[in-house]
Amino acid sequence: MSQVLTNPRSDRVKAVRSLAKRSVRSRTGRFVVEGPQGVREAVRFAPDRVVDVYATAGAISRYASDIIGPARAATPYVHECTDEVLAAMADAESPQGIIAVVEDVAPDLDTVLAAEPRLLVLLTHVRDPGNLGTVIRAADAAGADAVLVSAESVDVTSPKVVRSTAGSLFHLPVVRDLPIEATLQRLGDHGIRTLAADGHGTDLLPDVDLTGRHCWVFGNEAWGLPEALRNACDQVVRVPIYGHAESLNLAMAATICVYASASAERARPNSG
Amino acid sequence: MSQVLTNPRSDRVKAVRSLAKRSVRSRTGRFVVEGPQGVREAVRFAPDRVVDVYATAGAISRYASDIIGPARAATPYVHECTDEVLAAMADAESPQGIIAVVEDVAPDLDTVLAAEPRLLVLLTHVRDPGNLGTVIRAADAAGADAVLVSAESVDVTSPKVVRSTAGSLFHLPVVRDLPIEATLQRLGDHGIRTLAADGHGTDLLPDVDLTGRHCWVFGNEAWGLPEALRNACDQVVRVPIYGHAESLNLAMAATICVYASASAERARPNSG
Repeated sequence: MSQVLTNPRSDRVKAVRSLAKRSVRSRTGRFVVEGPQGVREAVRFAPDRVVDVYATAGAISRYASDIIGPARAATPYVHECTDEVLAAMADAESPQGIIAVVEDVAPDLDTVLAAEPRLLVLLTHVRDPGNLGTVIRAADAAGADAVLVSAESVDVTSPKVVRSTAGSLFHLPVVRDLPIEATLQRLGDHGIRTLAADGHGTDLLPDVDLTGRHCWVFGNEAWGLPEALRNACDQVVRVPIYGHAESLNLAMAATICVYASASAERARPNSG
Repeated sequence: MSQVLTNPRSDRVKAVRSLAKRSVRSRTGRFVVEGPQGVREAVRFAPDRVVDVYATAGAISRYASDIIGPARAATPYVHECTDEVLAAMADAESPQGIIAVVEDVAPDLDTVLAAEPRLLVLLTHVRDPGNLGTVIRAADAAGADAVLVSAESVDVTSPKVVRSTAGSLFHLPVVRDLPIEATLQRLGDHGIRTLAADGHGTDLLPDVDLTGRHCWVFGNEAWGLPEALRNACDQVVRVPIYGHAESLNLAMAATICVYASASAERARPNSG
């Protein structure tokens, strides 16, 4: 353990804080993970990518066995810092005493497709960081093989997205900056059915066959998918509304869809 | 249409704004609905409860047919106001030009139970307004008969809860301030099975029989249900996690559970 960091105006603090900017993340190839849940998953699932961990004395004591120990095995750079230093580094109002700087990696679509994925999620035009992160978390929970994100969506390594994935960003490949039309084409070429989830859908979710390899496609939280993209998908599927609600929000709809896929996969006669 | 309201410091504006406080809502029996979606649903589903509607000239023009027309049929008090007046009245940063003051009603549990409900949702110790509102929206979408909220939860008529229900607050009865233990007991007395949704559950959701009358019970977003309450329920049910995610958030888990109930209900051989 190095000396306690006490100066919230140091160059190091400014450098970490500047990773909240997309341009700085692009240039350095690094981003920040805030809070114990995210740091724990980074250390567990991507230890070779952990560059620095910053933690207050309280957090070092509280998370000694489940985060700090594994973090020290992953990197020599586990730094104790004051509450003021941590607050100055973090984007979140309450990072709960611990953050990490990690190396970004950009998994590519070729690698994902070569692994013969059964369940994928493709997001396009998603603008709210919390929504994007929550859908990644839902995809992870449902056992999806990867999440694909179009170039038109919010940046996956922005602090709010990273926070709302609750560590799922380190659990499955998240392929980014994809050209949406070409990606739909490539999925089709690989025999992966594309299912647009949209309130305009003609097929009701409970009636859709979800046993084969497929990719859910979700659009913008306010206006859904552009018509041209809906038409480019194999099916346009609507989650039924049984009461008077006008719609579900993106995260809710996505959660229902990916869980329906997970259930169908597990109900297959020849599944594990 | 009365005179345009232009003074953001008037007594009327202060009175509306003060409804953001729970004490003022309790004393006056009124609360505020912000934004076109909520106001539209209030006017459609509870026209006799609409006291005042405040809208900017832009909103009056944009929502002329779907909100302002029905609002004028519901109340003589549809007021045009300036952007400044609307901003001063609203809690939201962007109420999109329209808010309404509505009479609160407190549906009671007796009435809900007398209607022989098939699907209920009971929330306890939910502290985040966005979560509470989103679960009410999910319950509505899944066709639940009512939502029950314990005395330990955030106030249902607070501006953030009302916003995040997206109008669902006017679609189904939301019974409030319930004593949690006594309510579980009453549900049992009425032959309604209580299913606690909790990460500690021993029964996996896909294995649970959801065809009979039942009530989902959800607890705090961070720590779930206290053990005593879990034990007081008929079953403790866990949503399966197929990937590496540690958990789902409350809104996601609740959405999956109520939709599983809706699907089971519709799959019953003797259902409509």
